[in-house]
Amino acid sequence: MPRASVREVIVETAVQEIHKYGYAACSVDTITKAAGVPKGSFYNHFKSKEDLGAEVVRRYATESEWHRSTPGLSPVEQLRARFTTMADLLAGNDFTRGCLIGNMAAERADHSDIIRTQVAISLGTWSDSIVQAIKEAQAAGEVGADLDADRLGRFVLNAWEGTLLRVKADKNTQPLDDFFTVVFDTILR
Amino acid sequence: MPRASVREVIVETAVQEIHKYGYAACSVDTITKAAGVPKGSFYNHFKSKEDLGAEVVRRYATESEWHRSTPGLSPVEQLRARFTTMADLLAGNDFTRGCLIGNMAAERADHSDIIRTQVAISLGTWSDSIVQAIKEAQAAGEVGADLDADRLGRFVLNAWEGTLLRVKADKNTQPLDDFFTVVFDTILR
Repeated sequence: MPRASVREVIVETAVQEIHKYGYAACSVDTITKAAGVPKGSFYNHFKSKEDLGAEVVRRYATESEWHRSTPGLSPVEQLRARFTTMADLLAGNDFTRGCLIGNMAAERADHSDIIRTQVAISLGTWSDSIVQAIKEAQAAGEVGADLDADRLGRFVLNAWEGTLLRVKADKNTQPLDDFFTVVFDTILR
Repeated sequence: MPRASVREVIVETAVQEIHKYGYAACSVDTITKAAGVPKGSFYNHFKSKEDLGAEVVRRYATESEWHRSTPGLSPVEQLRARFTTMADLLAGNDFTRGCLIGNMAAERADHSDIIRTQVAISLGTWSDSIVQAIKEAQAAGEVGADLDADRLGRFVLNAWEGTLLRVKADKNTQPLDDFFTVVFDTILR
């Protein structure tokens, strides 16, 4: 059986490389070189670059800062804190990279069914957690009970992904300011 | 001086090819082959693939169905009709392709300053036209005068771009339904 640690270093390196350069710009060669493992070891762990691509999406979604929670915050404050953490990460990278899942949706969803499926699952998991937060906020009386939490949760995630695209294009905080103000002052009230 | 029609057929072909396959998957070779022009003629018209990429973004934004207007509609109905036209185009392509400008933001904004600049200009022009529509709707009493039209116009375009990413991933109309309901029933009221 192949050593788990070689697979692990390939996945962790590929998350960084694909996030930074995009899927097409990375090859099995550049990824194994960056990971410091023999190119030949790659196929002990992955059937193809596409197979690794799907695993990269899964790993990025699972390890995202999204899941961190801050004790003592109300449901809406918790939601805002999670988006703030992600916005700070983006600003710390000079507004580059954006969301790896959104980038993969744009670049690969039409061309790889296993990557597309993993992107859809990851976005679904994220929007489910926003739906959950909105339902908790409704139960706590922070958000109007008349709003459709399922629909809003999906919409807010999609708006966030579009916001990150605009940040990549504009290289400033304006799209983030727009997102926070419209979502937290106009929509979730 | 090179014939304008060769340049034109290269640009029109490149818009189609890059929209369908993505920027990285297209080369000067594949584009000139698809255009039916000699590869050597390319460099009479463009300095590089990147130079063509920027022109493709500009052309796509300029020729988008976005600019079509339907007589007799109120400002909000006009806005809704424009998004509906674009949603229908997307559904007609089996939910593939998405927005070429959003795809280029995801794939190239960090790696080509001339493409990034053209993406930012195109998104700015589109969101300005949404801002304008919201201001007209406010003047007509269709949308509350207390809303910040500039901020909302930018946000709505970003939400739309994220919606198109989600459509590419999910391959169904749910993200579009969410966009129309939240934007027209919750935000613009």
